[in-house]
Amino acid sequence: MKFLDKLTAAVRNNNSLLCVGLDPDPSRLPPGVGLLDFNKQIIEATKDTVCAYKINLAFFEAMGDEGYQLLKLTRDYIPADIPVIADAKRGDIGNTSKAYAKAVFDNLGFDAITVHPYMGLDSISPFLDYTNRGIFILCRTSNPGSNDFQNLPCLSIEGQVPLYKFVARKAQEWNRYSNIGLVVGATYPEELKEIRKTCPDMPLLIPGVGPQGGDLGLAVTSSINNRGEGAIINSSRQIIYASLGSDFALKAREAAINMKKEINRHRRPGCTC
Amino acid sequence: MKFLDKLTAAVRNNNSLLCVGLDPDPSRLPPGVGLLDFNKQIIEATKDTVCAYKINLAFFEAMGDEGYQLLKLTRDYIPADIPVIADAKRGDIGNTSKAYAKAVFDNLGFDAITVHPYMGLDSISPFLDYTNRGIFILCRTSNPGSNDFQNLPCLSIEGQVPLYKFVARKAQEWNRYSNIGLVVGATYPEELKEIRKTCPDMPLLIPGVGPQGGDLGLAVTSSINNRGEGAIINSSRQIIYASLGSDFALKAREAAINMKKEINRHRRPGCTC
Repeated sequence: MKFLDKLTAAVRNNNSLLCVGLDPDPSRLPPGVGLLDFNKQIIEATKDTVCAYKINLAFFEAMGDEGYQLLKLTRDYIPADIPVIADAKRGDIGNTSKAYAKAVFDNLGFDAITVHPYMGLDSISPFLDYTNRGIFILCRTSNPGSNDFQNLPCLSIEGQVPLYKFVARKAQEWNRYSNIGLVVGATYPEELKEIRKTCPDMPLLIPGVGPQGGDLGLAVTSSINNRGEGAIINSSRQIIYASLGSDFALKAREAAINMKKEINRHRRPGCTC
Repeated sequence: MKFLDKLTAAVRNNNSLLCVGLDPDPSRLPPGVGLLDFNKQIIEATKDTVCAYKINLAFFEAMGDEGYQLLKLTRDYIPADIPVIADAKRGDIGNTSKAYAKAVFDNLGFDAITVHPYMGLDSISPFLDYTNRGIFILCRTSNPGSNDFQNLPCLSIEGQVPLYKFVARKAQEWNRYSNIGLVVGATYPEELKEIRKTCPDMPLLIPGVGPQGGDLGLAVTSSINNRGEGAIINSSRQIIYASLGSDFALKAREAAINMKKEINRHRRPGCTC
């Protein structure tokens, strides 16, 4: 099944554009709860409220030896009908990207990955060759440093455009298997709108609501396609750390339901579901 | 000890600018030789001919479960006075890059890492905070796709400059701890020269000689600083696969010595050492 079809099915089944980011910090676990158990309880508590999960590989790599097993067990615990994005931000020359793709898609079974655009098409192609997986290219990221390069005015044959927009255009051009998406921060709603125009059918993975300062309503209305879909709104800390006590799973569920509903209000004014 | 001091000591001890890339492909091992044994024999055979080793994490990640242990054991086998670069090409928002830095520097004990510039300074800062480690920012990579974005003309306050040069300027500006280096492909000698002018004291990690088509002599003369140092010329496949038979270690040693000597001829015309 194509990534986009799996995503759309989950969006419709759970009536949700919410993606929960599983970025567990061992120092913030509730007392007496192990990391794998924490992840499992978060997944159980939120699995009917999301369209996807995003797992950030860095937090597992930081755990050394046992990180790989915890990552694999966490990924495998997610129900088969919910797509899981590896937030890995990889990108290297061809044969190296091929090894990363093997690691993330074949060995770990992720449905999608995030990648850096800087090295160009041949660094992304080995991922794109997995035509049933999703490849989210970093376009306009949510962090302050995104202005260092992504907003630079570049001269293209179509005139002067900021680098992030040039990346979006290239992504559109490279999308022969319809498996490319873009990462665009909620902190830049105007640019979300422009990117949605450039790439009308591409899924947009949107971090940066909440602690990073992005306005949820603007992020939703600026990014959804004309079917009210196509946006994957990620929230990590606001959901998984909604409570640091033993009620963390219940509170995570409440936070996820509230955010899903708020997103839906912005997708369809008046909606209370 | 600062990374740059450790590198310079190794350059002088071994009279070499050669870096051997340990990118082992399980399908290309000599009959009956395991991957760890292969790496150990390559290290033994080349350790007095190099200024650094570069280990590409992708090839270990592609091995799944056992990859992490093999990576760690390979890294730990390298003599303590030879710097080891993690070719990891990471880069993410602050708290995530911090987790990657922990994984690569604290857990695995690498001396340096390669990182993507696209997300800007705050994605690189958590690495830079390890002031004794080296951080090589991708600038002008050796692959064909590097032209997709890196060569785009950008408008800066100093006029129109290609993106890779803007990255080099930013790197120079960010280098308050003198721990930044740049990755520049041997396939672009003219650009190597310009980057060397922009960043006179920065170590340049140079892949792309040999199979990727970069001319070794031009790469050396375009990149060395005014002390005939500052360039780290990487070769992976030409050395580690010099022979696919049981004489692989001996042949790797011969290939490394030959390349070291050829590099030195270009550093100091007439030199035969």
